[in-house]
Amino acid sequence: MSDVLELARDLIRRRSVTPDDAGCQELLAERLERAGFRIERMRHGEVDNLWAVHGEGGPTLVFLGHTDVVPSGPEQAWRHPPFAAEIADSRLYGRGAADMKGSVAAMTVALEQFVGTHPHHPGRVALLLTSDEEGPTNLDGVRRVAAHFRERGERIDWCVVGEPSAKERLGDLIRVGRRGSLSGTLTVRGVQGHVAYPEKALNPIHAFAPALTELAAERWDEGNADFPPTSFQVSNLNAGTGATNVIPGELKALINFRFCTASSADELRQRTEAILHRHGLDFTLEWNLSGESFLTPPGGCLRETVVAVCRELCGIEPEQSTGGGTSDGRFIAPLGAEVVELGPVNATIHKVDECVAVADLERLPELYRAVCERLLA
Amino acid sequence: MSDVLELARDLIRRRSVTPDDAGCQELLAERLERAGFRIERMRHGEVDNLWAVHGEGGPTLVFLGHTDVVPSGPEQAWRHPPFAAEIADSRLYGRGAADMKGSVAAMTVALEQFVGTHPHHPGRVALLLTSDEEGPTNLDGVRRVAAHFRERGERIDWCVVGEPSAKERLGDLIRVGRRGSLSGTLTVRGVQGHVAYPEKALNPIHAFAPALTELAAERWDEGNADFPPTSFQVSNLNAGTGATNVIPGELKALINFRFCTASSADELRQRTEAILHRHGLDFTLEWNLSGESFLTPPGGCLRETVVAVCRELCGIEPEQSTGGGTSDGRFIAPLGAEVVELGPVNATIHKVDECVAVADLERLPELYRAVCERLLA
Repeated sequence: MSDVLELARDLIRRRSVTPDDAGCQELLAERLERAGFRIERMRHGEVDNLWAVHGEGGPTLVFLGHTDVVPSGPEQAWRHPPFAAEIADSRLYGRGAADMKGSVAAMTVALEQFVGTHPHHPGRVALLLTSDEEGPTNLDGVRRVAAHFRERGERIDWCVVGEPSAKERLGDLIRVGRRGSLSGTLTVRGVQGHVAYPEKALNPIHAFAPALTELAAERWDEGNADFPPTSFQVSNLNAGTGATNVIPGELKALINFRFCTASSADELRQRTEAILHRHGLDFTLEWNLSGESFLTPPGGCLRETVVAVCRELCGIEPEQSTGGGTSDGRFIAPLGAEVVELGPVNATIHKVDECVAVADLERLPELYRAVCERLLA
Repeated sequence: MSDVLELARDLIRRRSVTPDDAGCQELLAERLERAGFRIERMRHGEVDNLWAVHGEGGPTLVFLGHTDVVPSGPEQAWRHPPFAAEIADSRLYGRGAADMKGSVAAMTVALEQFVGTHPHHPGRVALLLTSDEEGPTNLDGVRRVAAHFRERGERIDWCVVGEPSAKERLGDLIRVGRRGSLSGTLTVRGVQGHVAYPEKALNPIHAFAPALTELAAERWDEGNADFPPTSFQVSNLNAGTGATNVIPGELKALINFRFCTASSADELRQRTEAILHRHGLDFTLEWNLSGESFLTPPGGCLRETVVAVCRELCGIEPEQSTGGGTSDGRFIAPLGAEVVELGPVNATIHKVDECVAVADLERLPELYRAVCERLLA
C-alpha cells in the first residue's frame, strides 16, 4: 500500500468532526518534524492549527488544508462506514476522503519527498492546517492564524489550497479565485397599530417596499473577465404578528451579497445603506463579512505553474474557475499571496459514501511536488 | 330597582361567552311572547339566534343585538367579578354591561312598553338576537339569519343596532355606516436555490417587491363625504427557510382592505389581481370578505329619527360617524334596510371592570321607544 494511501486512511479513521482535530495534526507534525520542518502549534478555543515550515528566506510556498470534516449523518446510511477507511472498487471510502484528508495526506507526502530530494531548496515550503474550515464561523481557524501572520509579518507568496476542485477528472478544474460573501441582518422599524386605523400606524412592510425594489433591481457592478457580476439576495423576510388585523411594528430581512473583485465589501455596505437612507427608513443593519473576494490573475507565477502541471502531468487543459462558495484561501489572499486551489474530484463531498479514487489520491503527491519543484528548485 | 336594570343584571349573570347563549335568549323570548310577539328560534351549529316580531305588514323596524360576550380574562383582575352584576358608584359592572347586554335589556323593555301602549301599531317591530357576534367568523349568527331572510323575502326597512356607540355621553355619537373589510392570503411562488447561484433560482421576495411597492402606493379611491379613502395594509409577510444561504421558493403575505362605499369588494379584488398579473407573478390569492361596507345616507328616515331622538331626549347633537371596526349591521344593510347604531358609552368594552352608568341604562329604553313611536305610531 502506498505511503499516501496509508496516511489518508490513518487520518480518516480519526473522527475529526469540526472543530475536533482528533490527533490528525499531531500525526502529521511528527512526520514533518522528522523530515526537518519547524513546527508551530496554534490552538485557539477548541480549534487546532498547525504551521510546519522548511527552509529560510526567499519566496514562500504554502500548502493549505483542513483536518476537520463535516458530520457523517446516520452511519447506517453509508455502504462503507464513514470512519473505517475501506477500499473497494479502487476507491477509498470515508468522511473526508475527498474533503480533504486525501489532499492533506498528499501534501504531507509531497513535502517530505521534496525536502528529501532538495534539502537546500531556495525559499521556504510550508504546510498550514486548521480543524475549523467546515464550521459556521471559522473564527478560530485560518482567519485567526492569518491575523497573527499579518502582525508578525509572515511572508506568503504562493498558496496551494487542497480543496477538491476537480469536476470529473483529476486536473480538469482549478480555482483561481472566489467571490466574497457579505451578509446583513436588517431591521426596519415602523409603528404598530390596528389595520382599521392605518393613519395611527406606520407599516414597515409598506415603507420598505420601494427600497427593496431598488435593491433587487440594482446593478452592483458588471463583473469582469474572471467573475460574474455581484449578486444581491434577500434570503429571509419576516414581518407580522400572525394576527390579520395588526399592522406590524417591525420588519426583519436577511440579505447576502456574493461579490466579485469589481466591488469591495465596504462599497457594498455603503451603497446599501445609502439606498435605505434615501428612502427615509428607520433601520439598523448588522453586517457580517464572511470573506472578501480574491483573484489570482492570469500570468501569475503560481497560477501558470499549476496550469502547466495539470496540462503536463494529467494531460488536461484545466478550467480556471472562480465559481463555488468560499474557501480558507480567502484569508490567505489578503496577505499578498497568489492562491490557487487544486484537489481531487468533488462529486461526493459532504455526501454519504464520500470517496476518492485511489489512483487520483496516489497521483496527487506528484502534482504537489511538481509545483514545489517548478517554483523552488 | 328598575325593570331594565333587573333584566340587564339577569343577563350579565349568565356566562354567555361566544358562542354560548347560556339561556339569555330564552329569558327574553318568554317575556316577549307574553307581550304578544311571535317567536322564532334559529339554532345553527353552536349558535342561538332569536327572531321576535310583533304586528303585520307595513314597514318593519328591527332592533338588533347579541347575547354573547367576549371572555372576561382572569377574573381576579376585576374589582367587580365579571358575572356578578354588581352595582357600585352608580354603575352596573360586568362582562357585557356595555357590550351589549345593557342594550339588549333596554330594547326588550322598550318593545314591551311600545306594544303595550300601541297594540295596533302600523307595520312591525322586531328583535333579532344572536350569540355569535364576538366570534372570529360570525358564520352561524346574523350572517346566516340574513341569508335565510333574503331567501324568504323577510322585509326589513329600519334596523337599530344596540352596539355601544357613545364616546362620553349617551347620545353623543351614532354610527350611520361602517367600512367593509376584505382580507386575502397571497402566495407568490419562485424557485428555491442557493444564494451563490442566483441564476438557477427565482427569488419571490425580489419578484414581489415592485408589485408590493405599487400596491402600497395605490390610491384605491378618494373616499367620500361619509368615509375616509379605502386603505390597504399588508399585515404579515413571510419568506425564507431561516437559512441565510437559501433563496426561498415561496413568499406568503396577508393583506387587508378597509374599504368605503366608493369601492366594492369585487373591484378591489380585480384591481389587486391585475397589479399582481401585470408584474408577471406566479401567485395564488385566497380572498375572505368579512363584510361589505354600508352607509345609511343623510336624509334617511331612520337616521333623521335617531338624530332627532338624541337631540331632543339627550340634549346633544350626535356625531354621525362611520368609524370603527365592523358590526352585525353589515349583514342587515344588504337586505335594503337603513341601519343606525345607538347604544351606551363604549369606554370600558372588552376591558376588565366593564360597566355602564345606571342612569344611561335606565335612559336607553326611552330612546329606543321614542324611535318606535316616531316611526310606527
